[in-house]
Amino acid sequence: MRGVKIIDIPKISDPRGHLGIIEGDVIPFQIKRVYYLYDVPSDAFRGGHAHKNLYQLLIALSGSFEVHVKNGKEAETIQLNKPNKGLLVESGIWREIDNFSSGSVCLVLASNVFDEQDYIRDFDEFKLFVNC
Amino acid sequence: MRGVKIIDIPKISDPRGHLGIIEGDVIPFQIKRVYYLYDVPSDAFRGGHAHKNLYQLLIALSGSFEVHVKNGKEAETIQLNKPNKGLLVESGIWREIDNFSSGSVCLVLASNVFDEQDYIRDFDEFKLFVNC
Repeated sequence: MRGVKIIDIPKISDPRGHLGIIEGDVIPFQIKRVYYLYDVPSDAFRGGHAHKNLYQLLIALSGSFEVHVKNGKEAETIQLNKPNKGLLVESGIWREIDNFSSGSVCLVLASNVFDEQDYIRDFDEFKLFVNC
Repeated sequence: MRGVKIIDIPKISDPRGHLGIIEGDVIPFQIKRVYYLYDVPSDAFRGGHAHKNLYQLLIALSGSFEVHVKNGKEAETIQLNKPNKGLLVESGIWREIDNFSSGSVCLVLASNVFDEQDYIRDFDEFKLFVNC
């Protein structure tokens, strides 16, 4: 779907476990913000917004969850459950996250620091934004 | 201990779970590389090196592990087991990581991309480096 893509994260594996590495051109932006969701109740719901400019990469570092994305024309649901698969969410994508497994951890790398002006929190406003 | 510091990571908590956020001046470097250890056997041992210039922040996003650090004069062991506590490890610090709990995830934010020239992998060489 336009604006959303699974990215294979380079992995180094040996008897000491797995190492996932994100640097250089693995993602198409500089990392300005790192945040993570943890201790999430399994019935929690996150998201319900889009960004005007922000790019993000979402990774299930532990457990699993579902990401529901809309670009104004198409809709898709992606289950993330592998630490070596990241979901690139570009700007102009409405996203909601739910169905968290017990103990899940969602890591997010973002292309900019927090900026409330970059958020679109109303779905009608989102539809106007993507149709421009 | 000089060169090693626990950093409180800003946390937003609500009924949907916890959100840990790293941006701006929470850490004293720009994030150039993100990597994470997962599926680590509980008897695994990691580290056994120092860096000439690299700064890193280590966080236990899930489970727990121990970080053994030496700066050439002092030694310390720190158990990481909380997603809102990060261990800042400056350059010139010998580190080893072990005692991983089942299912633990170690997130590392680093101030630069991978550079083999920045590693000190020999403890005698490390002692020379920190005494210069």
